[in-house]
Amino acid sequence: MLRTDSEYMSSLRDGRSVYYRGKKVEDITSHQVLSAAVRHASLVYRWQASPETRALTVAQDREHGEVSRFFTVPRSSQDLMERFELVYRTTRMGRGTFNIIKAIGSDALFALMIVSKAVDREAGTDYSSRVQRYYSHVLDTDPAIAVAQTDVKGDRLLRPHEQEDPDMYVRIVERRSDGIVVRGAKSHTTQAPVSNEIIVLPTRAMSQEDSDYAVAFAVPANAPGLKMVAKPEPAAEAALTDPWFVLGRENIETESLTVFDDVFVPWDRVFLAGEWRAASALSLMFPTFHRFTAISYRAGIGDLFTGLAKLLAEYNGVDDRSHIRRDVVEAIRYKELLRATAIAAAVNCRVDRETGIAIPDTVFTNVGKLVANTGYLDMVKALVDVAGGLASTMPSSQDFSGELGELVAKYLKGRKGSDPMERARLIALTREILSSFGALYTAAMIHAEGSIEASVLELFRSYDYTDSKRLARFAAGIDREI
Amino acid sequence: MLRTDSEYMSSLRDGRSVYYRGKKVEDITSHQVLSAAVRHASLVYRWQASPETRALTVAQDREHGEVSRFFTVPRSSQDLMERFELVYRTTRMGRGTFNIIKAIGSDALFALMIVSKAVDREAGTDYSSRVQRYYSHVLDTDPAIAVAQTDVKGDRLLRPHEQEDPDMYVRIVERRSDGIVVRGAKSHTTQAPVSNEIIVLPTRAMSQEDSDYAVAFAVPANAPGLKMVAKPEPAAEAALTDPWFVLGRENIETESLTVFDDVFVPWDRVFLAGEWRAASALSLMFPTFHRFTAISYRAGIGDLFTGLAKLLAEYNGVDDRSHIRRDVVEAIRYKELLRATAIAAAVNCRVDRETGIAIPDTVFTNVGKLVANTGYLDMVKALVDVAGGLASTMPSSQDFSGELGELVAKYLKGRKGSDPMERARLIALTREILSSFGALYTAAMIHAEGSIEASVLELFRSYDYTDSKRLARFAAGIDREI
Amino acid sequence: MLRTDSEYMSSLRDGRSVYYRGKKVEDITSHQVLSAAVRHASLVYRWQASPETRALTVAQDREHGEVSRFFTVPRSSQDLMERFELVYRTTRMGRGTFNIIKAIGSDALFALMIVSKAVDREAGTDYSSRVQRYYSHVLDTDPAIAVAQTDVKGDRLLRPHEQEDPDMYVRIVERRSDGIVVRGAKSHTTQAPVSNEIIVLPTRAMSQEDSDYAVAFAVPANAPGLKMVAKPEPAAEAALTDPWFVLGRENIETESLTVFDDVFVPWDRVFLAGEWRAASALSLMFPTFHRFTAISYRAGIGDLFTGLAKLLAEYNGVDDRSHIRRDVVEAIRYKELLRATAIAAAVNCRVDRETGIAIPDTVFTNVGKLVANTGYLDMVKALVDVAGGLASTMPSSQDFSGELGELVAKYLKGRKGSDPMERARLIALTREILSSFGALYTAAMIHAEGSIEASVLELFRSYDYTDSKRLARFAAGIDREI
Amino acid sequence: MLRTDSEYMSSLRDGRSVYYRGKKVEDITSHQVLSAAVRHASLVYRWQASPETRALTVAQDREHGEVSRFFTVPRSSQDLMERFELVYRTTRMGRGTFNIIKAIGSDALFALMIVSKAVDREAGTDYSSRVQRYYSHVLDTDPAIAVAQTDVKGDRLLRPHEQEDPDMYVRIVERRSDGIVVRGAKSHTTQAPVSNEIIVLPTRAMSQEDSDYAVAFAVPANAPGLKMVAKPEPAAEAALTDPWFVLGRENIETESLTVFDDVFVPWDRVFLAGEWRAASALSLMFPTFHRFTAISYRAGIGDLFTGLAKLLAEYNGVDDRSHIRRDVVEAIRYKELLRATAIAAAVNCRVDRETGIAIPDTVFTNVGKLVANTGYLDMVKALVDVAGGLASTMPSSQDFSGELGELVAKYLKGRKGSDPMERARLIALTREILSSFGALYTAAMIHAEGSIEASVLELFRSYDYTDSKRLARFAAGIDREI
Repeated sequence: MLRTDSEYMSSLRDGRSVYYRGKKVEDITSHQVLSAAVRHASLVYRWQASPETRALTVAQDREHGEVSRFFTVPRSSQDLMERFELVYRTTRMGRGTFNIIKAIGSDALFALMIVSKAVDREAGTDYSSRVQRYYSHVLDTDPAIAVAQTDVKGDRLLRPHEQEDPDMYVRIVERRSDGIVVRGAKSHTTQAPVSNEIIVLPTRAMSQEDSDYAVAFAVPANAPGLKMVAKPEPAAEAALTDPWFVLGRENIETESLTVFDDVFVPWDRVFLAGEWRAASALSLMFPTFHRFTAISYRAGIGDLFTGLAKLLAEYNGVDDRSHIRRDVVEAIRYKELLRATAIAAAVNCRVDRETGIAIPDTVFTNVGKLVANTGYLDMVKALVDVAGGLASTMPSSQDFSGELGELVAKYLKGRKGSDPMERARLIALTREILSSFGALYTAAMIHAEGSIEASVLELFRSYDYTDSKRLARFAAGIDREI
Repeated sequence: MLRTDSEYMSSLRDGRSVYYRGKKVEDITSHQVLSAAVRHASLVYRWQASPETRALTVAQDREHGEVSRFFTVPRSSQDLMERFELVYRTTRMGRGTFNIIKAIGSDALFALMIVSKAVDREAGTDYSSRVQRYYSHVLDTDPAIAVAQTDVKGDRLLRPHEQEDPDMYVRIVERRSDGIVVRGAKSHTTQAPVSNEIIVLPTRAMSQEDSDYAVAFAVPANAPGLKMVAKPEPAAEAALTDPWFVLGRENIETESLTVFDDVFVPWDRVFLAGEWRAASALSLMFPTFHRFTAISYRAGIGDLFTGLAKLLAEYNGVDDRSHIRRDVVEAIRYKELLRATAIAAAVNCRVDRETGIAIPDTVFTNVGKLVANTGYLDMVKALVDVAGGLASTMPSSQDFSGELGELVAKYLKGRKGSDPMERARLIALTREILSSFGALYTAAMIHAEGSIEASVLELFRSYDYTDSKRLARFAAGIDREI
Repeated sequence: MLRTDSEYMSSLRDGRSVYYRGKKVEDITSHQVLSAAVRHASLVYRWQASPETRALTVAQDREHGEVSRFFTVPRSSQDLMERFELVYRTTRMGRGTFNIIKAIGSDALFALMIVSKAVDREAGTDYSSRVQRYYSHVLDTDPAIAVAQTDVKGDRLLRPHEQEDPDMYVRIVERRSDGIVVRGAKSHTTQAPVSNEIIVLPTRAMSQEDSDYAVAFAVPANAPGLKMVAKPEPAAEAALTDPWFVLGRENIETESLTVFDDVFVPWDRVFLAGEWRAASALSLMFPTFHRFTAISYRAGIGDLFTGLAKLLAEYNGVDDRSHIRRDVVEAIRYKELLRATAIAAAVNCRVDRETGIAIPDTVFTNVGKLVANTGYLDMVKALVDVAGGLASTMPSSQDFSGELGELVAKYLKGRKGSDPMERARLIALTREILSSFGALYTAAMIHAEGSIEASVLELFRSYDYTDSKRLARFAAGIDREI
Repeated sequence: MLRTDSEYMSSLRDGRSVYYRGKKVEDITSHQVLSAAVRHASLVYRWQASPETRALTVAQDREHGEVSRFFTVPRSSQDLMERFELVYRTTRMGRGTFNIIKAIGSDALFALMIVSKAVDREAGTDYSSRVQRYYSHVLDTDPAIAVAQTDVKGDRLLRPHEQEDPDMYVRIVERRSDGIVVRGAKSHTTQAPVSNEIIVLPTRAMSQEDSDYAVAFAVPANAPGLKMVAKPEPAAEAALTDPWFVLGRENIETESLTVFDDVFVPWDRVFLAGEWRAASALSLMFPTFHRFTAISYRAGIGDLFTGLAKLLAEYNGVDDRSHIRRDVVEAIRYKELLRATAIAAAVNCRVDRETGIAIPDTVFTNVGKLVANTGYLDMVKALVDVAGGLASTMPSSQDFSGELGELVAKYLKGRKGSDPMERARLIALTREILSSFGALYTAAMIHAEGSIEASVLELFRSYDYTDSKRLARFAAGIDREI
C-alpha cells in the first residue's frame, strides 16, 4: 500500500537519534541542513502520486495492491531492464542524484531471499519465511529503507575476532529467547537518518571464530540504542548561502555512522545469526544486485555530465574544436558504457532456481562498476576542460543581481546570441559539482558499492577462464582442437 | 548453395592479378606465403561441412536452400545477437583471427539493401532490384567476398575533384550503354586476393562536383584491369622459419592495394553511379554494420589475451600478485566491454521500415568501437607485464630441440610442477603477437573499421543530446521541470 | 625596502572597490571571509621578518637595500634553481597553497623588461626605462602585486575588434596627453583584491585592427574606476563552520573579475600602447616565467599529496598493499616530475642578450606544465583510493567532541596503535581538499597558467624538430648520414 | 688503449659457444643474422676512430692514454650530464638503437667500485683492489662488455636455496684454491654473444642460506663451459627480405640465455663470493647507474618517434589537425620528460665519500624509468594514429620497384608536393618498429632495466617521506609548525 509524502514526513518524527555536527537533531524534517535529504527522499512518494510518473514508479501486486515498483522482484531479463530504466530515470528526475531509499532495500531483500533459502536448506533454519514476512511488511507499509553493510573495521589487517576491540564489526553480544542484542557500528549508511527501516548485512566472509559477526537483520530507524551520526553536508550548507545551488538545496542524500549501542532485534527480524558460512554468500549476492543499481544511477550522472559539457561547449562557443569534441565524447562514453553493461547484465542474467529471481550477470555488472569507478575523474577532467577557469573563479549568484549586476553580466558573456544568465547557471552547476559535491562524488564514485580493488578482485576470482584458456592453448599450438 | 573448400580453392585459380613483393603470384593457393591466407579463408567452407560447426555456420533459406549463416539478413535483436555469436565464435575457431570473407560482404549488402531503396525513391533509379539480384547470386554461389572502401586519398586536405591527380578516389571514367568503366585505387582491402567478389563502396560524403566519385559496384576478383598488390606478410614469412608460429602459418588475412586500372562493370553490378547525395548515407551505413562485426571479432581477440595472460600468470607462478591481477582484469575488461556494447547494440537495434533489416544501434556500436581502438595497447601492456622479458628474449623453438635442448629446458622452467614446453609455447605466442602480428594488430586495432577520430566524430555529431541537455538545464535551475 | 605585515594590512584600507557576494567590502582585512586571503598574503611579510625564514625570502640589493627575494632578477641557472626553491618552500610554508603576491608580479616584470627592450628597438619608444622606473618603485615599496592577463573574451571565435561588444578585451578608449583611459575586464585575477598594484598584460597575439587592445600597464589597486568582484570562497566559508579546516581559514587566495570601468593610467605606468606586433611576444614571455613558477608551486602540492597519502596508508593500516603502493607512488611521480622539469628548465635556461635575464627553457617548462595539468586528477584518484569512503562520510569535527564523542572515536579507529584523532584530521584534510577546494584545485590545475590545449599548442609550434627529423630520415634510410 | 673495429671483429673469432636457432654459430662476424649485432657494436669502435665523433667518444686517461669515454668514472653533476649526452647522442647515431657494449659494463664497474669498498670494510676482503685491477685491464684492452644479472629464477615464489633445482640462480658449486666454479643461467644478457667480457652480478637480496648465490665475477666470452643461446632476431631476418629495413640490417642488439655450465673463474676476477649481505647493495647500485643510462638512451628513442611522427604528419598532410598535434606532443613529452629526469638526476647526484664516484639521484632516475616504462605504448599509439593504416597494409619495397612500381607510386602519394618514396620509407620504418622490433621494443620498454613494479617498489620503499609527512600534518592542523 502506497504511502504519501506527507505520511512519509510524519513517519520521520518518531524519536530517532540523529546527530549533526555534534548536536541531536530534534526534527529532521525541519532541520536546516538535513531537511534537504528528506525533501529528496520524499520525491519517491511524490512520484508515486503524480499522474505523470505513477506508471514508472508504481506496480500492481496481487496480494498487496499498489506497491512501489522498486520492490518488484525481477524474474527475467526484461524485468531487470525495466529496473535499470526505473533507477536511471528517477536519477534524472532527481537532477542526477540517485534516490536510494527504495532501491537499496529491495537489492538487500532480493539477496536475502536467495541466500536464506540456501542457509535454510543447509542449516535447517527458517530464515526464508522470516524474510518473506518482512517483505510482506515492506509491501504493506511502503517504508524508506537504508542498508548498513560496511563495518568500521578497525585494523584492516585483522579479522573480526582478532581485533583489540571486539566491536569493530557488528556482532551478537547476547542471544535471548525473544531475539538478539547487537553491538557495533557501520560506516557510510546512505540515507539512514531519513529512513524507516535499516537492514543490516555482513560485510565479508567469516570464519568459524567470527560466528557472532555473521549476522543479518532489520530494525526500525528509531530502535532504542540505535544512533546515527550524519556526515556534514557541504552541499546543503553551501546552498543556504547560494540560491543557484539547486542540487544542494533539493537533491542530497546523507550518510551516517550508524552505531548499534546494544540494540535488541526480535527473532522475526533476524535473517542470519551465526551461520558463518553464509556470510560470504550474502556479502557477495547483495553487491551483485546493488552494483547493477549503481551502474544504472551512474549512467544518470553520466547523462548530466553529457548535457552539461555539450551545453557549456555551445555557450562558450567552442563546440567545433577537436579537443572539446573529445571532452564531450568522454562523457557520452562513460554514460553509454554503463548503459551497455547494464543491458548486457540484464540480458545475461541468471535465474535462481529456488526463488525464480533474476540475478544480473556478475561479470558485466562488475566490469560496468569498474568503468564507473575508474572513469569518473576522467569525465570531470573533460568537463572542466570545456567549462574553463570560470568553473572556479566566476562571481557568485549575488553578484549577478547586486550593485554591479549589469557590469558582471556585460563581461561574462559567451557565444554571440547565447543567454549570459543561462551560461552563468551552467558554470555555477559545474562549480557546485566540483566543490559542494566534490568529496561526495569523488569518494563515492571510487568507493561506493565497492572500491576499484574490490571489483578487480571479484572479477579476477570469479571469472570463468575455461574457454579463454582453451583458445590460448589452441593458438599457442599446445592443443590441436579448441 | 554451399561450396566446399576444395571448390573454393579451385575458384582462386582464375587468372587474377595478384602481386607479392613485386612479383606476380601465379597460383595463390600454392604460394609459399599467401597460401596461409587461403588456408584461413577456407576454414569457413570447412566449418560449413563439419558436423560440429554446421549448425553454427549454415542457415536454411526458403529459396536457396542451405546458405552461409553470415548471409542471413538480421531482422531482430535476436538475429543480431546470433550474428555477434557467429563472428565471435568463428574468430575463436581461427585462433583469434577474424574470418572476414563472408562477414564483410554481408555487412556491405545489408547497407546497400537499405540505402538503394532510399536512392531509388528519391532518384527514380532501380538500384535496389540490382542489389537484390546480386544478393541472390551470392546465395547461389557462396563466394568469398571482399569490400573495398578506403580510397588512397592523395592530399587529405582536398576533396576528390580538387586533387591534382583525379584518380585519388575511385571514379567513373566512362559511362557506356552496357556499363561503366572505373579507375582508381583502394587501400587495405582485406582478403581481396583470396576472394571471389569485390564490392566497392564510396569512402566519404561527396559534393555535386564529386559526382563521378559517388560510385558503388561489384566485380569478380579476376576482372580485367583489376590488380591487387598484397601487403608483405611478416607473420607468414616468420612462420616459415619458426614451427611454433601456428597463427602465422594457419591464420592470417592479407590486405591489398586494390587498383582499378580501367575496369569495366556491367550495369547490373552497379549500385550507385553519380547520385552523390547518397554517398554519405552509404559511407555511414556500411560502417555501422561493419563496426558491429568489428566489436564482435575483437571480443574474440580479447578472449585470446585473457586466456593467454591468465595462463602465463599461472605458469610464471605470479598468479597471486596484485599488479598481475590488474593485468589479467585489463584483458577481461576489454573483452567484456566489447561483448556488452555488442549486446546493447543488438538489443537497441533499429528496424528499417522499408526493408525490415535490423540495424545495430550506432551509439553503442561506436562506443564499443572506441573502447576497441583506444584500449588495445593497454591490454598489450598488461600482457607483456605478465609475460616478462622472455616475450622478447626467449630462445627459439629450435633451441628447445637442438644440441642444447636439455639445458635450455632446464633453465626455462616456471612455477613448480608446470610444463616448461607449454610455458615456452605460450611465451612464443606472445612473441608472435608482438612481432609477427605487431604492425597488423597495432595499426588495425587503431584504424581498421575507422580510426579513433572517426568514432569520436561520429559519436559527437550523431548523438541525440536532447534528454541530456534537458537534465543539465534542470539541474542548473534554468528549467523547473525535466 | 621591506614592508611589515601590519604595514601591508594597513595598505589595504585605501578605498579600493572590492565586492563579495553582491556587497561592497568595507575593510577587507576584517571581512569575515576574505580576511583569510589577507592572512595568507601577509605571511610573505611575516616570513621576511622572521629570523628563520629571512634568509630564504630576503635579498640584498645594491641600491635598494633589503628587498623581497622574489624580486631578484634571475641571471643564471643557479638563480632559477633558487627561485624554484623559494616558490616550492614558501608553498609548503603555506600548507600547500602558493603565495602569489610577489611571485607573479616579478614574473610579469621580467617579461616586461625583456619585451620592452625589443619594442623600443623596433618602434623607437622608451617603454624599457618606464619598466625600469616601475621596478625601482616596486623594490622601494615592497608591494603585493597581482597580474591581470586573461580577458573575458566574449565570443571565443571572434578576434578582439570583431566582437559585438568592443569591450570584451581590455582596450584603450582614450589617449590623453598625460596618459590613457582603459576599459574592459579581466577574468580570474589571483589575489587582486588583496594586492597593492595590478599589472595588466595582453592575453594573445593581436592584428593591426586590434591595436587598441595591445596594451600593458600598471595601476594601484584603488585606482578610480577599478572594480574587483571576488569569487565566492567555499573554503573560507566552510572553515567558519568547521574548526578542522585550517587550510580554508588560513591559506586561501581569492580571485576577482577585475573590471576597468574607464580607468586612467599615466604614461609612466603604460608599458605598451598600440604596438600590436609586441602583444604576442609579451603574451608568450610572461607565461614562460609564470609556468616555471607554476611547476614550482605545484611540486609543493604534490608534496602535500605525497605526505597525506603515505600517512593515510599508515593510519589505515594498508601501507603494504600493492595497489596502495601504486597510489602513493602516483603522488611521488607527480611531484618529482615537476621538480625534474623545473631543474631541467633552469639548467637549460637561455640568457637574454640585451637584459642578461635568465629565461627558463620553454620546452621543459611546458612539458612540466602539461604533466601538472593532466596528472592532477590521477593523483586525486590515488589519494581517495587510499583514504577510503570516509573522505566523504566521516562525521564532522564537532561529532568527535560532542555528546557522542566517545562512541565516534571508539568506532573510527584505524591501525592498532595509531591515534584516531590524528587519523580523523588527515581524513578531514582530504575532505577539505576535495570539497572546499574542489572547484579551485580542479579548475586551477587544469586551466591556471594556461590550459592543456595551450601547452600542447605551445609545444607543438615552438618545438625545434630539426634533429628529430634528421634522426627519423636517417633511420628510415632516406639519408645516409645523421 | 683504443681498439679498432677490425680488431674488435677479429676478437670475436675466439672459439666462443654461441647458438642460433638450435645451431652452433661458427663465426658470428659472418653469420647471416647475428652479424647485424656485430655491425652495430662495431660502430662504437668506428666512432672512436672517426674525426667527427672522436671528441664525443674518446677520453684521455692519465695512466692509460686514450680510452673510451664510456669508461670515464663520473665524479660530478657535470660528468653525469656528459654521460647522458654520450648515451643519448650515440643512440641517435645508431638510428635510435642503444649501443650497450661499453655503457653497461661501466655501469657495473662503477657499482662494483662502490660496493666492493663497503664489503672490504665490513668483511675484511680485498675485492676493491681486484675490481680496480680489472678496471685497469678494461682501460688497457677496450673490450666490449656484457652484464648478466637476471637469473632464470624458476619458481618465482621460492628463494634461491628453496628451488627444487638448485641451479635456478647462478651459484658457486666449488671453491678451489685458484678460483671458483659457477653454475646456473642468466636470462636476456644483451649483446653477450658479441662481447669480449661478461660481468655477472646477483639479481636480488640474499639470505644467509643463499650464500652460494651471492656471487659476482667477470669472465671472458669464450670461457670453457660458457654457452650463449641467442634469441631469434626477427628484425635481422626480416631485413634479409626487405631492403628498406635499415634498422634491422644495421642496428640490432641481440640477447642471450647465458648458461654457466660449470665455468671456472680465477680469484682475481671474483668480486663477491658468499658475502650475502652485499648482494642487496650490489643488486640495487648497479640498476641506479644502469637506469640512468636507460633514460638516456630511451630519450633517443623518444627523439626518433618525435621526428617520425612529425614527418608523417607533414607527408600525410594532416599536420594541422588538433588530434595529430596531441599525438606529436605525446612523443615530445616522452622524450623531454626523460631528458628532464636525467638532468635532474645528474644535478642532484650523490658523491660517494669513499670512491668519489657521482651516483645519479635514485628518485629522479626511477621516476624517469617509470615514465619510460609506462609511457612507451602511449607513444606507439600516437605514432600509429598519425601513420594511418598503411603502417600495416602498405605494399612492400619490392612493389615500388616491381612491374607495378609506377602504379603503386601513383596511388601512394601523400600531401601535394611531398615525395612519395620518402613517405613510403617513413611508413616502412614505422612498420619495422611495430613488427620486426615489436616484441623487442614492447617487452624491453616495459621490462628492461627493471619492470614497472620494480620501479614502483624501489620508489615506494626508498623515498624519504619526512618532509612530505611534516607538510601533511601541518596542513591537517595536527602540528602547528612545519
